[in-house]
Amino acid sequence: MKKELNPNWDTSTHPALFPSIRVRRTPFSSRNEEFGVTAYTVYNHMLIPRVFRSLKEDYEHLKSAVQLWDVSCERQIELVGPDALRLLQLTTPRDMSRMADDQCFYIPVVDEKGRMLNDPVVIKRGHQRYWVSIADMDMLLYYRGLATGFQLEVDVFEADVYPLAVQGPRADELVSRVFGAELASVKFFRYRTVTFQGKEMVVAKSGASHQGGFEFYVEGEDACIPLWDTLFEAGQDLDVYAGCPSDIERIEAGFLSYGSDITLENTPFEVGLGNFCELETSKDCLAHSALVAQQNPTRQIRYFEIDGEPLPPADYRWPIESPDGTEAGFISSASWSPDFGFNVAIGMVTEPFLINGGEIFVQTPLGKAAARMREKAWI
Amino acid sequence: MKKELNPNWDTSTHPALFPSIRVRRTPFSSRNEEFGVTAYTVYNHMLIPRVFRSLKEDYEHLKSAVQLWDVSCERQIELVGPDALRLLQLTTPRDMSRMADDQCFYIPVVDEKGRMLNDPVVIKRGHQRYWVSIADMDMLLYYRGLATGFQLEVDVFEADVYPLAVQGPRADELVSRVFGAELASVKFFRYRTVTFQGKEMVVAKSGASHQGGFEFYVEGEDACIPLWDTLFEAGQDLDVYAGCPSDIERIEAGFLSYGSDITLENTPFEVGLGNFCELETSKDCLAHSALVAQQNPTRQIRYFEIDGEPLPPADYRWPIESPDGTEAGFISSASWSPDFGFNVAIGMVTEPFLINGGEIFVQTPLGKAAARMREKAWI
Repeated sequence: MKKELNPNWDTSTHPALFPSIRVRRTPFSSRNEEFGVTAYTVYNHMLIPRVFRSLKEDYEHLKSAVQLWDVSCERQIELVGPDALRLLQLTTPRDMSRMADDQCFYIPVVDEKGRMLNDPVVIKRGHQRYWVSIADMDMLLYYRGLATGFQLEVDVFEADVYPLAVQGPRADELVSRVFGAELASVKFFRYRTVTFQGKEMVVAKSGASHQGGFEFYVEGEDACIPLWDTLFEAGQDLDVYAGCPSDIERIEAGFLSYGSDITLENTPFEVGLGNFCELETSKDCLAHSALVAQQNPTRQIRYFEIDGEPLPPADYRWPIESPDGTEAGFISSASWSPDFGFNVAIGMVTEPFLINGGEIFVQTPLGKAAARMREKAWI
Repeated sequence: MKKELNPNWDTSTHPALFPSIRVRRTPFSSRNEEFGVTAYTVYNHMLIPRVFRSLKEDYEHLKSAVQLWDVSCERQIELVGPDALRLLQLTTPRDMSRMADDQCFYIPVVDEKGRMLNDPVVIKRGHQRYWVSIADMDMLLYYRGLATGFQLEVDVFEADVYPLAVQGPRADELVSRVFGAELASVKFFRYRTVTFQGKEMVVAKSGASHQGGFEFYVEGEDACIPLWDTLFEAGQDLDVYAGCPSDIERIEAGFLSYGSDITLENTPFEVGLGNFCELETSKDCLAHSALVAQQNPTRQIRYFEIDGEPLPPADYRWPIESPDGTEAGFISSASWSPDFGFNVAIGMVTEPFLINGGEIFVQTPLGKAAARMREKAWI
């Protein structure tokens, strides 16, 4: 089978995802299928849609209307008990004592050597009770292993929560219609609770797009389809439709993806998370001394405009080369950007090639292409 | 989109698996694509083929010829250091001191409450050095968490190993041709090393089929394609072809799949692994006292013949009911068996419905169907 090079990624020519119980469906899967999902991926052992109408159409719709995203795969690892906060602080250099009660805290999670295990968002659900909204790794096992080894008083389990994101420029209008304008006015990365069908539900101003929006942390399966249908019906004239995180828009906005742009090999400093390493006030973090020594990384995340024709989504690391052909790093995410008219990409670049604006080359599936490196993303 | 009910599972009507770097390709992926893989799944963040020609054709070929399986996704977690054996024994009730140097040890891995985290095969690679061939969970994180908490002297990392399985009734003949008859005579669940392209390679008599065969633990990417091509060329007249674990044959043989038939909710006793709980001699296992209390489970794995027309692969738990409609458990794997002419399935049944041979009912995607429960699988 020839590798597909159509940047709009024609799903009909690609291998299917085989069904199994191990790859869990979500309470929203039936709606995804009714709205015509054409590609899935697997994240935290669970389905998440990747394409509905086409990469380009989904992207344009996200930037102009409002979408409902089944992000159930953002599993919530609940830490509850007298040592919940201590367990969190053992694994992150961010100072957890500074977290406000209504705050969504993005944190690097590292092992004792400062290696990135995850980059979740944490929500404080109550006294000695946290939800860790994990990227694609079984953090439950790390927390359980550590809790057992240190004999901590904390329960660690996957909570029965299925996040539904509402994303796009019309997200404010849509949630205002259903839950009132007060919810729309919540500040970025803060949350509040709303009542739906008689039950409390956490709603955060957050989400994996730069278009604005909300994440509804739906507890229990029963409320999932009613919430989807309520939002869908309320947004008919807003052109609401099913959607999913767009790799194009994500790369344009410079959001890193754990497993692609960040891996177990990295320190927080290499992946631009140095600002979250509050080394003066997080001395309980097991990696504290390792992180102190890692503050001047010899490789770092950069952004790239890659010349030439539209490239397909990256499914392996494309080598980056200096003008004289020396290996200089690799691309970890890439997409054709319809809005910018060039290929946008994220990659890891090693010293001494970390010169922004300098020309560099990428070995793409379509051949060697010139690229320009930059420190910031595009939107 | 209507759910597909064709038991032969026509891949063309199913959502594709979207490409990403996070879902890792393997050194064999290009060969899988050349041989026409039509469905993938994701296992340990890595691709594994699920269908080549069709479910039925792949199954019949596995039972009559010999297949090359890219099971790179059986990631090897290497434990190396003075406390490697201690770390293993903390997490399993199987007595690791009884493991012979050339043995493949199938072990339940449990947390301190006796909950199943994994069911890997362990190979001793040398003094204080083990490979844990994991099922689909990030066991690296559990081992690291525990090692850090207990301050063990052990390194835990994912080894650069890509298993290739050779499975089918003609596997002995194929490996004999390439590596000599001595390799074919290795006993079941034992291994030896062979030399390929000047490098040592572990080869075990093992694999996720009942048809006999081998697993080659290829170290480093470079040897992968040469090994595949060597085996393929040597087996032309044996009808060697690309293949993958067959759910049909796996269920017929009663092999459980972690994530479907075994989950974090289960104890070893519930999933038929009581024989591997050597509680007299594995007192260092953290779950020892929990397991002592769990020896009489109130639910257990059983096998089922489900009546009626061919059923599609299960992608959610199908409820099991007693004749009077009482909830009695759920199906965790199912497939139409072309050889037996009925649907074969695995499921979890609760007391007091654990009466083998008794009639029971299953709520399938095609409606309620009568089923017969049995204690053993079919082949």
